[in-house]
Amino acid sequence: MPELRKDPIHGRWVIIATERGRRPSDFVIEQQKPAGGFCPLCEGNEDKTPPEVLAFRNNGTRPNSPGWSLRVVPNKFPALRIEGDLDREGEGMYDKMNGVGAHEVVVETPLHEETLATLPVKGVEEVLWAYRERIIDLRRDKRLRYVLVFKNQGVAAGASLEHSHSQLIALPIIPRRVVEEIEGAKNYFQFKDRCVFCDIIRQELQQRSRVIVENSDFLSVAAFASRFPFETWILPKKHHSHFEYMEPFEYKLAAQILSDTLQRINRVLGNPPYNFIIHTSSFSDADKEYYHWHFEIMPKLTKVAGFEWGTGFYINPTPPEEAANYLREVK
Amino acid sequence: MPELRKDPIHGRWVIIATERGRRPSDFVIEQQKPAGGFCPLCEGNEDKTPPEVLAFRNNGTRPNSPGWSLRVVPNKFPALRIEGDLDREGEGMYDKMNGVGAHEVVVETPLHEETLATLPVKGVEEVLWAYRERIIDLRRDKRLRYVLVFKNQGVAAGASLEHSHSQLIALPIIPRRVVEEIEGAKNYFQFKDRCVFCDIIRQELQQRSRVIVENSDFLSVAAFASRFPFETWILPKKHHSHFEYMEPFEYKLAAQILSDTLQRINRVLGNPPYNFIIHTSSFSDADKEYYHWHFEIMPKLTKVAGFEWGTGFYINPTPPEEAANYLREVK
Repeated sequence: MPELRKDPIHGRWVIIATERGRRPSDFVIEQQKPAGGFCPLCEGNEDKTPPEVLAFRNNGTRPNSPGWSLRVVPNKFPALRIEGDLDREGEGMYDKMNGVGAHEVVVETPLHEETLATLPVKGVEEVLWAYRERIIDLRRDKRLRYVLVFKNQGVAAGASLEHSHSQLIALPIIPRRVVEEIEGAKNYFQFKDRCVFCDIIRQELQQRSRVIVENSDFLSVAAFASRFPFETWILPKKHHSHFEYMEPFEYKLAAQILSDTLQRINRVLGNPPYNFIIHTSSFSDADKEYYHWHFEIMPKLTKVAGFEWGTGFYINPTPPEEAANYLREVK
Repeated sequence: MPELRKDPIHGRWVIIATERGRRPSDFVIEQQKPAGGFCPLCEGNEDKTPPEVLAFRNNGTRPNSPGWSLRVVPNKFPALRIEGDLDREGEGMYDKMNGVGAHEVVVETPLHEETLATLPVKGVEEVLWAYRERIIDLRRDKRLRYVLVFKNQGVAAGASLEHSHSQLIALPIIPRRVVEEIEGAKNYFQFKDRCVFCDIIRQELQQRSRVIVENSDFLSVAAFASRFPFETWILPKKHHSHFEYMEPFEYKLAAQILSDTLQRINRVLGNPPYNFIIHTSSFSDADKEYYHWHFEIMPKLTKVAGFEWGTGFYINPTPPEEAANYLREVK
């Protein structure tokens, strides 16, 4: 019998096809690469991007020149523009405003052939550190309310450049999916006086059937109500509402488990396209006892179709317990 | 400057890239077809599907034999099962229930090469009539609360069979996206004492910049806050909360505008993969003055990536006014 499962944070239901669970080899993994040719993100081509807003560089190298291990640059084709005012206005019954915001690209490595999964943990730690520094900087812009950190790996997951990179989009609005998650967590806290994410961590560490890997401070787990096959969340065991306000040593441990988890996904599924996002608190929020930042990693194995668009319901053909088992056991 | 637009029903914001609007020829249209070979939906292969629950047949032909113009059959690989009880239960903090529901396939034509866009209007009318009959029948099952009618055309839109078909999934839960839409419409009505969809129709008919085509009873329009390029809604001009409770002559007019709209999309975009859904009232709802059934047609031209998954925000590279212009002008 298929199972309907409810996400305890959003209240979002998913259909888990427990009977005919799809194994890793059942998926057609799309391996299409972005068009090759000249790469504006490679070392030596710094003049082909807008000037860097952050870089980790060798001593003595100049901005926008070679000698870096990581760069953050504004997106050359931004979804939103950093200049200008919001100019909120109506058009009859409709509401609109100017698309003010920031859209930045984190170039994760100077080397075209590396990926986040093949970088040494030190390199992944730099990536997380760059996210942190950019979030802290963007928070100061009073027009902005939220920043989403995300990564699209592979053409099927929306990447248009092959060179390993992630992105930040800072928005003048707290996006609806984040509001839903924060409100859901708040409702749970009002009811239970406990953080819903902390409760999830406790139950997962006790049940262990969905745990993939853990270290002293982080847990990698197949979400109980996963929307997508092999959807994986990484959560800090200690309660933290903001990604950007952890202790320095915690970024190293986050990098270690992120790297380990991505390597497991690559081995089990054969380097699939994937998206990941970081969900963290909004800019206006002080430290919150009810919200808990986390990663959501979504391998792109199935197509989202009419049913999902129409309902917001997802059909997941791989039970999370089976996905966790594959990812936990892989060498 | 890009524009942020708010959907007046859900309150969902989208980013409309007004500056570098993508034209039809800018999109890479995925034309991958489902694997060929034996087709279980073709006339003559009736024994390869579960027995039909509805068919429009020539006089004198027997069920599950040739001689039909349309068949509805249970899905051979259903996402939900029609037998059994919901058996709601908890697993620690998590909630689940059995995946009880109906999953049916509407075989729109006996001919493998036809599509909904190439069928005569009479054939499209039969398809809508089949949706109506199946909804009315499924409403009688007290375990079920909602039915979503949807169509996936083309592999990139999630189709696994090439033969033209649409699907119905009846659910024991009112799905979240429908609840949001109904609640949003209810809030608008409480505020304005008018149906938000009726207001949209009035404003669109006045502005005309997003109108694609109309007939006496229906309007085809590019939604003001379209999530996807060339997203198109079809609405009845007269207020109807339930798809299944229109007057018989109205299905003919709905079929005429659906056929016309799909043909326009095919001509402008070169037969793109697409999804469509019908949003209608839930089973328990009597006639509602605040909710208005409609079609949402979503050509599959862009990839949904990390930003969309993380925020529920969409980036639409084609302003709806430009999309409407292309679709209105095409011969």
